Amino acid sequence: MRLALNQYTTKNWSLPEAVRGCVDAGLPAIGLWRDKVAETGLAESAKLVRDSGLAVSSLCRGGFLTAPDGAARAAALADNLRALEEAAELGTDTLVMVVGGLPETGPGQRSRDLPGARRRVAELIAELAPHAADFGVRMAIEPLHPMFCADRAVVSTLGQALDLAEQFPAEQVGVVVDSYHVWWDPELDRQIARAGAGGRIASYQTCDWILPLPADTLLGRGHVGDGCIDFRALTDQVTAAGYTGWIEVEIFNQEIWDTPGEQTLRTMIERHLTHVAAP
Amino acid sequence: MRLALNQYTTKNWSLPEAVRGCVDAGLPAIGLWRDKVAETGLAESAKLVRDSGLAVSSLCRGGFLTAPDGAARAAALADNLRALEEAAELGTDTLVMVVGGLPETGPGQRSRDLPGARRRVAELIAELAPHAADFGVRMAIEPLHPMFCADRAVVSTLGQALDLAEQFPAEQVGVVVDSYHVWWDPELDRQIARAGAGGRIASYQTCDWILPLPADTLLGRGHVGDGCIDFRALTDQVTAAGYTGWIEVEIFNQEIWDTPGEQTLRTMIERHLTHVAAP
Repeated sequence: MRLALNQYTTKNWSLPEAVRGCVDAGLPAIGLWRDKVAETGLAESAKLVRDSGLAVSSLCRGGFLTAPDGAARAAALADNLRALEEAAELGTDTLVMVVGGLPETGPGQRSRDLPGARRRVAELIAELAPHAADFGVRMAIEPLHPMFCADRAVVSTLGQALDLAEQFPAEQVGVVVDSYHVWWDPELDRQIARAGAGGRIASYQTCDWILPLPADTLLGRGHVGDGCIDFRALTDQVTAAGYTGWIEVEIFNQEIWDTPGEQTLRTMIERHLTHVAAP
Repeated sequence: MRLALNQYTTKNWSLPEAVRGCVDAGLPAIGLWRDKVAETGLAESAKLVRDSGLAVSSLCRGGFLTAPDGAARAAALADNLRALEEAAELGTDTLVMVVGGLPETGPGQRSRDLPGARRRVAELIAELAPHAADFGVRMAIEPLHPMFCADRAVVSTLGQALDLAEQFPAEQVGVVVDSYHVWWDPELDRQIARAGAGGRIASYQTCDWILPLPADTLLGRGHVGDGCIDFRALTDQVTAAGYTGWIEVEIFNQEIWDTPGEQTLRTMIERHLTHVAAP
């Protein structure tokens, strides 16, 4: 079983609860979030996970690298160094990176300099890459759906993420294939093959695209099988590209967050076996 | 002045009101919508526009070509033939095409066959192209933002639209560059240059990407200058690509729709002069 719970899928669980839930459900791995780790404490979180026998599939997240020069940029660099260190201490080799949107220039105002924001992402990845190597952690750049380009991630496609990652050694910078963010891309099959050929796929995340989009578009994700994504085809592409790592379920959805975690895990496992796992 | 009102920007105006509004505001052209034309009647609409001296920058819209074989597909073909004929009668050479999303397979259910939907679009464009030539009307394929891939348009990028258009003569099939739908695309500059080099840019539409997205993501568009898009850079790219046609403002936004049309036109013209028109 290669299925991992990304702990934000059961957002109402603390880290100890999520670890317990995974063990009880027979899952082999968990993807952690830094805010949840901080709640419990880093050393305690690391010990809890290690003692549980669970693997840590990834740590979410680093990134937000688009601030212009100055204190905000220095703070972003420092925070990402901490994130790399936390990943190493938690025992995962994968730090998921959401690169950040157009920087805010005032209340309700953002820069319009998209090329500039992308350039700053590349510059900070370059600064971080040798440190990632030192920690034995790979930065996994996650292209986010283009509807988040302005406010969350100026890296919007797998091809764009690979253009960036390929400037660095594969063990330092990889990419995330998250079904929700990339399913629509007409270049997807080619870019997954490219990512696999270069050994760049650091994580495969699953959740479904459901309609209508909710008022908060961040929370519009569905359980695998509830939406429009052809998970058989997508998983076949990721598998054909040589990826054998964890398949992590990451769902942001208020209704699912309001569901008891045990039930969410049962649904998640059942959907994974039906739609994603090889028959 | 190359500025045109797309009449859905002043949705509460009838066609006669929109024509009058454009003339009063000194605009040289209007983009029409088929539902508004039908309200007034095709012959009457054509006469009104002709008598006004306005050019018709485009007719919106044909498309919705993804239905599987059978009656729905035949109906789509027939409807698009009518749309081509209407465009010709209204005196425009540009029919904007929104190609359609994943076909519905039941209540709240859609097909997951994205490649199949795209294949059917290409097939129907091929059937329509000779008729477009007969009518002297070009089908302008509009890539829609990827957040509409499931329910409105399985063509999501300018590059993808060009891959499709280039299978046909340039006078039969072109593309729309709509700032709202394409601004995020890391390939945008290259694809605009490609579109221009092939004589494929049939329309340039402007409106801005504003945050937060509203509950109905269809209605999240803002006046030029209110959001994140760098219209100077985008317009320079479109101009460098050789486009000299109309620049049409198409905004879907409930607040703007609730504003008196005269005021919307004043804002639109002022923003165009500030952010889009060459200094």
